[in-house]
Amino acid sequence: MSHVSTVRRSIVLKRRPPGEPSPADFSIVEDAIPTPLEGQVVTRTIWLSIDPYMRGRLREQQTYAAAVQIGEVMTGETVGEVIASAHPDFAVGDVVVGARGWQTHSVTPGAQLVKIPTGGAPLSAYLGILGMPGATAYAGITEICKPQAGETVVISAASGAVGSVAGQLAKRAGARVVGIAGGSEKCLWVQDTLGFDDCVDHRSMDLRRELLAACPNGIDAYFENVGGEVQHAVFEQLNAFARVAMCGMVSQYNATKLPPGPNLGFVVGKRILIQGFIVSDRPERMVDWRRIAAPLVADGSLIYREDVIDGLDNAPEALTGILAGHNFGKMLVRVGPEPT
Amino acid sequence: MSHVSTVRRSIVLKRRPPGEPSPADFSIVEDAIPTPLEGQVVTRTIWLSIDPYMRGRLREQQTYAAAVQIGEVMTGETVGEVIASAHPDFAVGDVVVGARGWQTHSVTPGAQLVKIPTGGAPLSAYLGILGMPGATAYAGITEICKPQAGETVVISAASGAVGSVAGQLAKRAGARVVGIAGGSEKCLWVQDTLGFDDCVDHRSMDLRRELLAACPNGIDAYFENVGGEVQHAVFEQLNAFARVAMCGMVSQYNATKLPPGPNLGFVVGKRILIQGFIVSDRPERMVDWRRIAAPLVADGSLIYREDVIDGLDNAPEALTGILAGHNFGKMLVRVGPEPT
Repeated sequence: MSHVSTVRRSIVLKRRPPGEPSPADFSIVEDAIPTPLEGQVVTRTIWLSIDPYMRGRLREQQTYAAAVQIGEVMTGETVGEVIASAHPDFAVGDVVVGARGWQTHSVTPGAQLVKIPTGGAPLSAYLGILGMPGATAYAGITEICKPQAGETVVISAASGAVGSVAGQLAKRAGARVVGIAGGSEKCLWVQDTLGFDDCVDHRSMDLRRELLAACPNGIDAYFENVGGEVQHAVFEQLNAFARVAMCGMVSQYNATKLPPGPNLGFVVGKRILIQGFIVSDRPERMVDWRRIAAPLVADGSLIYREDVIDGLDNAPEALTGILAGHNFGKMLVRVGPEPT
Repeated sequence: MSHVSTVRRSIVLKRRPPGEPSPADFSIVEDAIPTPLEGQVVTRTIWLSIDPYMRGRLREQQTYAAAVQIGEVMTGETVGEVIASAHPDFAVGDVVVGARGWQTHSVTPGAQLVKIPTGGAPLSAYLGILGMPGATAYAGITEICKPQAGETVVISAASGAVGSVAGQLAKRAGARVVGIAGGSEKCLWVQDTLGFDDCVDHRSMDLRRELLAACPNGIDAYFENVGGEVQHAVFEQLNAFARVAMCGMVSQYNATKLPPGPNLGFVVGKRILIQGFIVSDRPERMVDWRRIAAPLVADGSLIYREDVIDGLDNAPEALTGILAGHNFGKMLVRVGPEPT
């Protein structure tokens, strides 16, 4: 068989690209295909997945996962065939998925591999729609965007591995789904083949106007893959109680310094939750709070301070002052005497 | 009694301030104290609350609540005494809390008033720690910040009506609590009287360094009241999985145009949820997703597209391309043949 070889080729990181990575930032090394030690499995790679998150691994600073070191094999998910096994659960010929990196062969503890069925979905699907990108779309849509029937959901990078699945899931939930993609070919595919209700080209001269036309009722949920100008345009059109799943901001992964704000790149890797709220949305909170707080105020466990000004006519001045931080404690106007 | 009068004084909006509001933006009108119609209650105002949110009501655009119109009485929460009642639940002498505006007397449907006990907490407390500001702190801490013992929680406007309560609640949950306030007098009170672990003066020459010193283990939750430079400094020091309760951004309420980003002012009024996530944090998602998606892929209900490049050596080029948006569908490298 043509793929029987004794040589393994691996792509290692040669230097950290400051901006856009290029092939010259990597080098190819060859060694012998390893033999498995106890508990290990050797695979030959069939498919290697290329994903935007990989740009983060090229940076010196650790993000949510360890950086790839200089001279180290580049990380990546693969589908491979077992060619030698010293693990009881894996036999030669099994097909497995795992994060085995940019190399033709790998040796791995069996525990890090998942066997996948052959004869069902194409093997490559386990790196896409049935793999990490598909699960990412599923998590963002079901756990964060939570689209309701009739709502409008916007998906950026809509023709991509994650966006294409996210939009289809939102559509299945009964939402109006609007994609954002680069170029008319991608936009047409998103609309005609994936069945999104509309798709806006982010290269358009007037992204905001086109987005507004595609989302006449505003935007209730946004699945964010790109950041930058697209994010700004979407954020301006978010409705009250909108949910934003921050999955990626690929437009700035190559940036040597962060584009001007809102720049929320840190929200993705750190899994930050930012939640706006207005107490009066749920009046029962006030009732709960009075019940909880009244005894704590009475016994001095909770401390408060008031800043009192006398006379209704001074209310405007009090407002000016509180906006400038001149008050010290809760600002109150004494309008009339306490009951006697 | 000195407060028996037949004249009502009200403060109405005269013009919309472009920036900082001043007393000249309001005028005082007098009319007769009204008499109650069926179901109404007339109160004389004892206490009027002054809160930062009021700045939003002066804008022409509706925010989450209706704008105050020119000539209309300025809105605000009050504590008042019932002086006339045509509602069976209220009698003369009852003390009530409600949003009755900047006026010495009001006439109100009884359903909009809540009776409060006399002889317990001071009446003014029902506009502060036992009122809207206290309930706001409670909502933000318990529903969004969710401090755990040992975590670090930062509270801006820490000496204010909301911040002072938020910090005390976080402290009761066992967190290390660091306030941010303006000036040494407020900072000392926050530390010595409220019992926060530390308090940083936002007027400091080096806010970032002082915040870092006060939060040696990073910041796990942030209760946001101010925005601007304070927000930037805090955001830089957030830990993974941090929670940000966006309650207010008072530093920009007077702004005629929004300060440069990150500018998340819209998040508060619109109650936006922004959530970063990484799919691999919960590996069971992948298992769930494969189970759900496999039959949908098999029957064609879920559509996907692949963009394939041949040969491991081309992986770097594929990564460059995906970051530039050159791929169309899931990017894959075919490293070796499928099993035969």
